[in-house]
Amino acid sequence: MNVLIWNEYRHEKENPAVSDIYPEGIHGALADFLKKDGHTVTTATLDEEEHGLKKEVLDQTDVLVWWGHKAHEEVTEEAAERVKQRVLDGMGLVVLHSAHFSKVFRKLMGTGCDLKWREADDRERIWNVDPTHPIAEGIGQYFEIEKEEMYGEHFDIPAPDELIFLSWFEGGEVFRSGATFKRGNGKIFYFRPGHETYPTYYHEDVQTVIRNGVRWAQNTNGPKHQYGNAAPIERISKK
Amino acid sequence: MNVLIWNEYRHEKENPAVSDIYPEGIHGALADFLKKDGHTVTTATLDEEEHGLKKEVLDQTDVLVWWGHKAHEEVTEEAAERVKQRVLDGMGLVVLHSAHFSKVFRKLMGTGCDLKWREADDRERIWNVDPTHPIAEGIGQYFEIEKEEMYGEHFDIPAPDELIFLSWFEGGEVFRSGATFKRGNGKIFYFRPGHETYPTYYHEDVQTVIRNGVRWAQNTNGPKHQYGNAAPIERISKK
Amino acid sequence: MNVLIWNEYRHEKENPAVSDIYPEGIHGALADFLKKDGHTVTTATLDEEEHGLKKEVLDQTDVLVWWGHKAHEEVTEEAAERVKQRVLDGMGLVVLHSAHFSKVFRKLMGTGCDLKWREADDRERIWNVDPTHPIAEGIGQYFEIEKEEMYGEHFDIPAPDELIFLSWFEGGEVFRSGATFKRGNGKIFYFRPGHETYPTYYHEDVQTVIRNGVRWAQNTNGPKHQYGNAAPIERISKK
Amino acid sequence: MNVLIWNEYRHEKENPAVSDIYPEGIHGALADFLKKDGHTVTTATLDEEEHGLKKEVLDQTDVLVWWGHKAHEEVTEEAAERVKQRVLDGMGLVVLHSAHFSKVFRKLMGTGCDLKWREADDRERIWNVDPTHPIAEGIGQYFEIEKEEMYGEHFDIPAPDELIFLSWFEGGEVFRSGATFKRGNGKIFYFRPGHETYPTYYHEDVQTVIRNGVRWAQNTNGPKHQYGNAAPIERISKK
Repeated sequence: MNVLIWNEYRHEKENPAVSDIYPEGIHGALADFLKKDGHTVTTATLDEEEHGLKKEVLDQTDVLVWWGHKAHEEVTEEAAERVKQRVLDGMGLVVLHSAHFSKVFRKLMGTGCDLKWREADDRERIWNVDPTHPIAEGIGQYFEIEKEEMYGEHFDIPAPDELIFLSWFEGGEVFRSGATFKRGNGKIFYFRPGHETYPTYYHEDVQTVIRNGVRWAQNTNGPKHQYGNAAPIERISKK
Repeated sequence: MNVLIWNEYRHEKENPAVSDIYPEGIHGALADFLKKDGHTVTTATLDEEEHGLKKEVLDQTDVLVWWGHKAHEEVTEEAAERVKQRVLDGMGLVVLHSAHFSKVFRKLMGTGCDLKWREADDRERIWNVDPTHPIAEGIGQYFEIEKEEMYGEHFDIPAPDELIFLSWFEGGEVFRSGATFKRGNGKIFYFRPGHETYPTYYHEDVQTVIRNGVRWAQNTNGPKHQYGNAAPIERISKK
Repeated sequence: MNVLIWNEYRHEKENPAVSDIYPEGIHGALADFLKKDGHTVTTATLDEEEHGLKKEVLDQTDVLVWWGHKAHEEVTEEAAERVKQRVLDGMGLVVLHSAHFSKVFRKLMGTGCDLKWREADDRERIWNVDPTHPIAEGIGQYFEIEKEEMYGEHFDIPAPDELIFLSWFEGGEVFRSGATFKRGNGKIFYFRPGHETYPTYYHEDVQTVIRNGVRWAQNTNGPKHQYGNAAPIERISKK
Repeated sequence: MNVLIWNEYRHEKENPAVSDIYPEGIHGALADFLKKDGHTVTTATLDEEEHGLKKEVLDQTDVLVWWGHKAHEEVTEEAAERVKQRVLDGMGLVVLHSAHFSKVFRKLMGTGCDLKWREADDRERIWNVDPTHPIAEGIGQYFEIEKEEMYGEHFDIPAPDELIFLSWFEGGEVFRSGATFKRGNGKIFYFRPGHETYPTYYHEDVQTVIRNGVRWAQNTNGPKHQYGNAAPIERISKK
């Protein structure tokens, strides 16, 4: 399938500490391991024309992976609406880390999507709470990330359709770190880890979860619902 | 508590068939029976200044009941955003019938909120599927509305937090007619019946459900969550 | 994968009207189309030793499909507990029609699982309400069964994890006809149609849904959780 | 309303460390603060005749609060079934701490209800994740218990209908500590804290949550569903 990885791609250009970790950008690191699954993986970034999110690109995309952080507001309303609509039309969406605050995710959730955060080298331990979920395939009871940004509850999202992972943070917080949401014809997976100053996307379990998430988010050939005025199927009595 | 009933109030002014049924407007009919619960009930309509939805009005409102149909697009973005934000801040919202397509509901749901419809005097039978829910208090196994507009699946909403009522329609369709959604600090109840050309809001069971819905949607004194940068509660080890 | 179809297999032996429709038994009809997916399909019936549900059989089963009706009580407690435990350990379970009242399903749900029913040649129209679900793959907006037993709400089950299909019945009822439940490591799909006196299991859409359900219910290689006394992972301060 | 508190009442009789904390038994401590809400509070214990759970007692009970730990297996099948059935008939149930392993809770959940545990004076921090829920009324973002037994994921329960609290434990685990489940006509609230060797039930926030839980679990006058053979409401065509 066609996987499009969208990255804001600003930190990497402005902060050597980030580009040292992700010399090809976060999108490059994500693309590297997603390619291993046989997907056709392409990337797009904020500073491209229309952010690399033209209609014809989205129309060809099965699953979009989104990473953004400091420039959410630079994504145009038009592009954000176009992506949202494409998700509702059936494109899968994997929302990573700080993309919780992206226009696209907020529009799809309808809530503020805010949370607590802290950059203090917290150890994070991500516990699985749904052993049946295909996104948890190949994962143990939990996995650890030695140092990460903390995200803490309350995470202002709708109650997820499925809750897969919960994070424990060294500094005392918890977080719903892996959650799914169905919206329209689209499947959305939010996954917490991935602050730009840590090598999180090289973590094997993190990669496994994202690979699973991309596969899970792919559209199946479901019913094509028609909306609007509908003729009766059964006879309606005269009243 | 303070209940604000918002009505588009156009059909009643333009169509005698509607004003014959609702001489004081749909908002007037809703206000009549909601007052019986001891609430302080006020009304607001589209053509008032800022649609009667000024910030100070919303700030004083515990639960907002919304009916709109043909003029959703005339509600300004500003007003719709203000109402949405107030719901996220804790105001309850009862969304009636064609308000499924209101800007406020669509923003809160994040989906298209579309459905099938037909104006053909379908008989509607509304079945309860959650006998524990306070919104179903005082209702039987089902209740019937002799003639109503049909709304049919697929109803393009997120999977509701709770599904309370399912409708059967004479013409062959079904519909998730009573459903709840929590968003931010706000509680939302969608209830299907109430096409303007039928006397649905005089139906005793319909009134009972709306009265229950208003009570249910009222904010409780829940946790006030803080967001943003957070100091650690526990000591974080040096790494 | 290994699919085991369990059938009570009494109606077919006692009632020619049923055996005319299902000369190889309902299990035979189910096996026929499930084999087309490349599964290794075997069958078992009530009157076999241990109902054909010995531990070693269940241990080799990936997904169990269950049909029962008039002899639920003849399934021994031991066998029902064994099947339940195997589901919790990860075997998928597809529960068909009157198996809503089977010991296994009731034990897994924890509720009465009762419903309304009527054998009166109702026309049934099954509407999809979740277009994203893999179990709805290949299905249209709805499909019809010309004549079926009616099952009506209230269906006394826990709120399903996912609601996929709703039925409309000619006689005036609705029903949650396709629903999923995760229990332990097992995935459960309940699907309503299939009264023994109708040729429902030859219906193409019914077959598609069951085939999808079997695939969906298969266990993924999820986390193997350990329970019981657990050593601390982090240092606990002296208090 | 009538609140019945059931306590195993063995630790208090056998272990002075427990009876020092709860000289009137855990049930006594629970009764003390629940009485403040104006309920008629009674208690029952394992060693009473029929465990104090005779049919006529249960029939008069609106909400049952259950604490048990070391003697779950001494509760007779008959009593456990009777309580389960009464919950399905509409009695509320508040399940505390180690009652996760009670026969009643396991029967109602249908799963193993197992978890990780450790008695090591972990600090527990209980975070609210649903600010709209009446059970969280009067609670802050989180509250702490200085020392408690640890319960860790995976907690082998069905996905709750509502998730209200998540626990952080000093030793590195997380837990879904406050969760609701609707079963039949009954509402069930599971709340984690309360190991017998700690004075947890004197903790103000713990008391607030339990008081809220009892109120929430009370039955509303919902639909009385009829089951079984049902005459058609609409005319069924001859086929």
